[in-house]
Amino acid sequence: MTWLNKVQFNEDGLIPAIAQDRQSGKILMMAWMNKQALAHTVETKKATYWSRSRQALWLKGEQSGHEQIVHRILLDCDGDTLLLEVEQKGGIACHTGRESCFYLELQESSHGSNWSPNAPILKDPETIYKK
Amino acid sequence: MTWLNKVQFNEDGLIPAIAQDRQSGKILMMAWMNKQALAHTVETKKATYWSRSRQALWLKGEQSGHEQIVHRILLDCDGDTLLLEVEQKGGIACHTGRESCFYLELQESSHGSNWSPNAPILKDPETIYKK
Repeated sequence: MTWLNKVQFNEDGLIPAIAQDRQSGKILMMAWMNKQALAHTVETKKATYWSRSRQALWLKGEQSGHEQIVHRILLDCDGDTLLLEVEQKGGIACHTGRESCFYLELQESSHGSNWSPNAPILKDPETIYKK
Repeated sequence: MTWLNKVQFNEDGLIPAIAQDRQSGKILMMAWMNKQALAHTVETKKATYWSRSRQALWLKGEQSGHEQIVHRILLDCDGDTLLLEVEQKGGIACHTGRESCFYLELQESSHGSNWSPNAPILKDPETIYKK
């Protein structure tokens, strides 16, 4: 597939993929894709990543139900980063139960800076990942 | 610095940093930072990346004038991706003269899919990077 050949995967065969909520414009998460994950995403319109920790395809939301329906896929000028415009099912992308994985904000003070959570937990992770 | 120790740099000492326009919510680019680049960004409030091709600190906009003034810095749940909310000087982040580096959209058709530019060139790159 020609379009797939234009995608620059790194030396591990991976490319970073940013997921953005198509309604709010909020950045939800960043994860990695290999060729298979990208092809699966395009085919099914459901965001599918490559889990580096599990070394396996990761259909986002498979366990939690928090799937990401992909409306647009964009590639950057260097061809080495992807951007997915998605509809986030359940309004929760993060495994902590928050809307976005980017919830730690650098707060600077004269007493020393630190990362502070700036977004509420919308759903208890234990409820999300119930056994 | 404690806050810097919570940032998970990869085996090359780098972390991906996504720049988002704080007004429009548009994702402008993704680049990499090392510890020094991140510390410099926090100190100066101007986005500073690590150029992997040049293996040097890269003060965004140094040549083009298209600096990014950093208003907020966010870290994700795993601590391994950064998000910068920026004011994009000149309204152009991409070296091609476009607002965003993510301008190639996957267009699917029965004749074969491809990446098509979906955003205008706002300024001729030769004018931006005049010698």
